[in-house]
Amino acid sequence: MLETPRIRRYSFIVTPLGDHVAVGSDNPSGAVNQQERPGAEEWAVGFVDGEGCFSISVVRNTTCHSGWQVQHEFAVTAASSRSALEYLVEVFGCGRVVENPRWDNHRESLLRFSVKRRADLVTRVVPFFEEHPLRTAKQLDFEKFAHVLCMMQAGEHLTESGLRRIARITEQMNRRQRSRFLESSEAIRQPPRPTAR
Amino acid sequence: MLETPRIRRYSFIVTPLGDHVAVGSDNPSGAVNQQERPGAEEWAVGFVDGEGCFSISVVRNTTCHSGWQVQHEFAVTAASSRSALEYLVEVFGCGRVVENPRWDNHRESLLRFSVKRRADLVTRVVPFFEEHPLRTAKQLDFEKFAHVLCMMQAGEHLTESGLRRIARITEQMNRRQRSRFLESSEAIRQPPRPTAR
Repeated sequence: MLETPRIRRYSFIVTPLGDHVAVGSDNPSGAVNQQERPGAEEWAVGFVDGEGCFSISVVRNTTCHSGWQVQHEFAVTAASSRSALEYLVEVFGCGRVVENPRWDNHRESLLRFSVKRRADLVTRVVPFFEEHPLRTAKQLDFEKFAHVLCMMQAGEHLTESGLRRIARITEQMNRRQRSRFLESSEAIRQPPRPTAR
Repeated sequence: MLETPRIRRYSFIVTPLGDHVAVGSDNPSGAVNQQERPGAEEWAVGFVDGEGCFSISVVRNTTCHSGWQVQHEFAVTAASSRSALEYLVEVFGCGRVVENPRWDNHRESLLRFSVKRRADLVTRVVPFFEEHPLRTAKQLDFEKFAHVLCMMQAGEHLTESGLRRIARITEQMNRRQRSRFLESSEAIRQPPRPTAR
């Protein structure tokens, strides 16, 4: 799988500010020169295995009939590699690169490739990962994500029982956080007993 | 680049413990079934773009002639995806998966794919990334890493001036931490003035 072993010569210049700038490497491609090469889809799978996140949340939204809305996002975060994230826009044919200010003291802002539109997720992102499965445990999050989108395509998120099923699935994804919707529903179903006076 | 849009049906079972287990998906491959498919190298590049780290440190070692040793490691970290890390051992033809206990309260231990042996780095890892360049800013760390290994192949780490050049390069990698070696050397070159009594 690997080529004949050899090591190439890299040259560096130390700038007046002490930065080391690579010059005259005999392999000039890479981060700066994003040349086209085969295997873009597999690279994207690997990058998502590393930095990707499939998330579903059931959040309060008083403009919805049920008072709750299902939000969905496929995102990939990278601090300082805008070109790599823009390449994901090309590979998936959807999404955009957004910039989040960082809450900590890092000099660089946090960049993320983000796809939120359900039509893009259903017609582009899900078929992509069906064709090119993830290799890490993130595949399990993807399968739950795809399942929820499928339920939404069937309108199940518009019923209370559907919302409840979706919320249960979200509790098994990513950081396995408790669903606010389920906590809220349980509170409605089991009102607290009146306190004794 | 993408296939005809369609969404597949996923089925889930809720276990007695509340876990959702995917069953009967019409795409059974993925994290569990690490089947062989083309593009393994590009997947590895993407995964390293996400979670990889090329590190060089100049550390105290009294058994070395100079009192300092240059340590090198290429590592990829993943919390709960041993099979993906073991796949890297196959792709690179070297390295191993090691387990680090976590210092925080996570249930899972931290797994990492690690290559430390210089012969493996020089004959396998460096040629691999020359053939398949990274697409994120990590490419710049790789180039510095390869450059230091090249200097070490020429024995430059055995001289004080070589050690100093290597230490300056390490200060421009990853988190850009100050080099203890340089701080130490400067202390030696400029001994503190005797305090007044």
